[in-house]
Amino acid sequence: MLLEKIKPLFDFETLPKPVYIGNGLTHQDIISVSQFDTARLDYIFARAHEMREMVERVGAVDLLKGRVLACLFYEPSTRTSASFIAAMERLGGAVIPITQGVQFSSVSKGETLADTIRTLEQYADVIVLRHPEIGSAQVAADYANVPVINAGDGAGEHPTQALLDLFTIKEELGRLDGLKIAMVGDLRYGRTVHSLTRLLLQYKVSLRFVSPEILRLPLTLMNEVIDARLDVRETHDVADVIENADVLYVTRVQKERFTDLAQYEEVKDQYEITPELMAKAKSKMIVMHPLPRVGEIHYAVDADPRAAYFRQVKNGMYIRMALLAAVLGKA
Amino acid sequence: MLLEKIKPLFDFETLPKPVYIGNGLTHQDIISVSQFDTARLDYIFARAHEMREMVERVGAVDLLKGRVLACLFYEPSTRTSASFIAAMERLGGAVIPITQGVQFSSVSKGETLADTIRTLEQYADVIVLRHPEIGSAQVAADYANVPVINAGDGAGEHPTQALLDLFTIKEELGRLDGLKIAMVGDLRYGRTVHSLTRLLLQYKVSLRFVSPEILRLPLTLMNEVIDARLDVRETHDVADVIENADVLYVTRVQKERFTDLAQYEEVKDQYEITPELMAKAKSKMIVMHPLPRVGEIHYAVDADPRAAYFRQVKNGMYIRMALLAAVLGKA
Amino acid sequence: MLLEKIKPLFDFETLPKPVYIGNGLTHQDIISVSQFDTARLDYIFARAHEMREMVERVGAVDLLKGRVLACLFYEPSTRTSASFIAAMERLGGAVIPITQGVQFSSVSKGETLADTIRTLEQYADVIVLRHPEIGSAQVAADYANVPVINAGDGAGEHPTQALLDLFTIKEELGRLDGLKIAMVGDLRYGRTVHSLTRLLLQYKVSLRFVSPEILRLPLTLMNEVIDARLDVRETHDVADVIENADVLYVTRVQKERFTDLAQYEEVKDQYEITPELMAKAKSKMIVMHPLPRVGEIHYAVDADPRAAYFRQVKNGMYIRMALLAAVLGKA
Repeated sequence: MLLEKIKPLFDFETLPKPVYIGNGLTHQDIISVSQFDTARLDYIFARAHEMREMVERVGAVDLLKGRVLACLFYEPSTRTSASFIAAMERLGGAVIPITQGVQFSSVSKGETLADTIRTLEQYADVIVLRHPEIGSAQVAADYANVPVINAGDGAGEHPTQALLDLFTIKEELGRLDGLKIAMVGDLRYGRTVHSLTRLLLQYKVSLRFVSPEILRLPLTLMNEVIDARLDVRETHDVADVIENADVLYVTRVQKERFTDLAQYEEVKDQYEITPELMAKAKSKMIVMHPLPRVGEIHYAVDADPRAAYFRQVKNGMYIRMALLAAVLGKA
Repeated sequence: MLLEKIKPLFDFETLPKPVYIGNGLTHQDIISVSQFDTARLDYIFARAHEMREMVERVGAVDLLKGRVLACLFYEPSTRTSASFIAAMERLGGAVIPITQGVQFSSVSKGETLADTIRTLEQYADVIVLRHPEIGSAQVAADYANVPVINAGDGAGEHPTQALLDLFTIKEELGRLDGLKIAMVGDLRYGRTVHSLTRLLLQYKVSLRFVSPEILRLPLTLMNEVIDARLDVRETHDVADVIENADVLYVTRVQKERFTDLAQYEEVKDQYEITPELMAKAKSKMIVMHPLPRVGEIHYAVDADPRAAYFRQVKNGMYIRMALLAAVLGKA
Repeated sequence: MLLEKIKPLFDFETLPKPVYIGNGLTHQDIISVSQFDTARLDYIFARAHEMREMVERVGAVDLLKGRVLACLFYEPSTRTSASFIAAMERLGGAVIPITQGVQFSSVSKGETLADTIRTLEQYADVIVLRHPEIGSAQVAADYANVPVINAGDGAGEHPTQALLDLFTIKEELGRLDGLKIAMVGDLRYGRTVHSLTRLLLQYKVSLRFVSPEILRLPLTLMNEVIDARLDVRETHDVADVIENADVLYVTRVQKERFTDLAQYEEVKDQYEITPELMAKAKSKMIVMHPLPRVGEIHYAVDADPRAAYFRQVKNGMYIRMALLAAVLGKA
């Protein structure tokens, strides 16, 4: 009786259909930088550039209206989660924010990552995962029927960071081939340095690795660089590279890495980027940093137009917009 | 002077009016399964089925555009809060997520639940409440002028879980009358089992209760089942029911419930759902679980098409969409 | 090759342009009540009144569609963050919720407030900041290129609270000039009392300050009141003011403020608002409270139409809607 009175809520013929864009990443997971050859990088960078233009002109669009992103952070990372949330929102999509790692309730009840992922994919069209364990993003992707984007899996990868780093160089300097790129600081443990370096091996760049002795680039990665037959040098002092560098990619030399604190005190000043150091650099070059920084770039450098690290942050949003649009797209 | 120059921001004549749907739940609270007779269940299930069709075809609509849901979780429950958030977002509504229980600041300042609710209803059009104390949802509903949906009040009720469970049986098997339904595991403390059983008393079903002796269905509920004159049996072993069951509703037998651990070790294997056990079941039946699971259903069962527990999760979103649309509707 | 096939995603000519409203606050920070003269107050109150009318009629609009608010709370404040989130959502905007203070990850890594702000402004069009340290909102505003709205900086200011308090008096009683306004309770430490009092100095009001001796209004603020040549009196007992007050603004007398607990026990009853006390008040007057309350207003008073504290909460949303629209606007 009651039921007979029910009129359908929706006229499906007149409902707007989802909007898709053509690309080579449709419904794919984004787990590792190794998925990105130069053609795919060109594609994503072209899309990210479009996103930048769109945001600067109108702020947001409805491209992903009706799509839902589950932002699942097993450890908090405000910068990365905020970037993905803004990216989804500026494309008109919605977000399920699960960004307070330690309180994820099902986990404390003993649920496996696989079950959590298979639960969330019932609600969401795409899952962004941050997890402290290496390999977890691939596990999630193996179980999920919706695309999984790796937002950092411990000592593993953080591919969107590497993509935004490379995109920043391209946007700022207009090209990649022919550039002199210096990586500075903790090259041994710095995940962002490793991923960016691997992406750069596909281009004709000169690489300079500047680090304390105990924080030199790992041997396996150094061998990959050598095999790529790029112009490469290692050094202990930023002063050695500052004059010719087109890019100075700075990371922090953490005190905790040193067993001998005297050694730390001795070297740390060689890795601080100061206005005095910048005075020796080219007029057209950029300083980058994955942030957060804790003193390794002097605040007086911020006003220098060559300080690109906050523009780099913004590029992260554009790259994530391009990726979200790509994995949710259809040819 | 300044004020005179102010032109109105809005032309109310041209603003879109809120969309309403007709139903018997307009502006009502959803506190208990006892509110749902078969007519109302039919109504909600018909709407939930429509929601499923809509999501599968277009992902989301603007039915609740401009409506705001306050998701107030005094204890975290990622699955339930994510489900409600996705439900509201897929209907075009917005969410105020207050889902990190322990840090709810006003509570730590001594505010009563009543005041918190009366504050949030100033911002939101509907409140979903999870609270550790039995009866709290009714207290909230008594004070609120906007609809309150109970998302679990401790040892009390969790009505949307019971509704999604029943809806899953109907969606999967096409009917409720005539089915053989086996409840397995902790039938004494399992809130979901109690609520689902109460809903099932309105249908012509056969019930089988499978549990260790110390975790048998509570006496009062058993008497309700007997009074309903259904075909009912209790047993200690899943093997007794597996061949004829249309539905196997599995819950966890928690070690902590046993004072005698030897007793636990003795019985626990009788409550694990394995591929070997499933080989004895009918070809058209379903295995359900409220999740999260911790070993009581073997992972090898997941690939079995009869494993319905993740589809059950998705049905939770559809049921919550139907309820949100219903309580925010107007005849 | 792949790249050549890329068609532009957006036709910028046909994209909707952002909507702006004219006002004197475009792109300005909201840090202190001292920014608000009567002309600006009139403007914001007129807009807030429009917001109220809009919400009551249609619930929400798309005025700020495509705009993103970063809600950055270094300490949790559910009421204030929920209010800002609802305000942004009811104007069609999106929110990045970072509202679980203690877990803000970059901060734990040693990032400065300035860097956090400069990061978030890459994602968001406006930042709402709650921070435990006085002066932090101004620091944030100094570094940010997007508008910063102070949602409380420790012992500093909480300007949107003061604005909503004043707006409530105007909405409820139709005017400000000529009113008798009594502030009750902890006048020494109560930030809301101080800010509201400063705003009221611009109007022709009578002020009554009712507090225990040790919680009297600070000397500097009392001198400001005297300099404004308003009709002002201090007293120790609410009974002295109840008969003539148009507004009773109640705050809590905290036990912890007293070194001598006997003194606390002696005075506390003089500061409880009861139905008996209300029986002596004018028929057209209002009781306000910044909430949360812990006993200082008897629950039996809630049913009294003169109890305005929950309407006051709702006015907070309207004021924040008006401010968000204003700072994101363009002449």
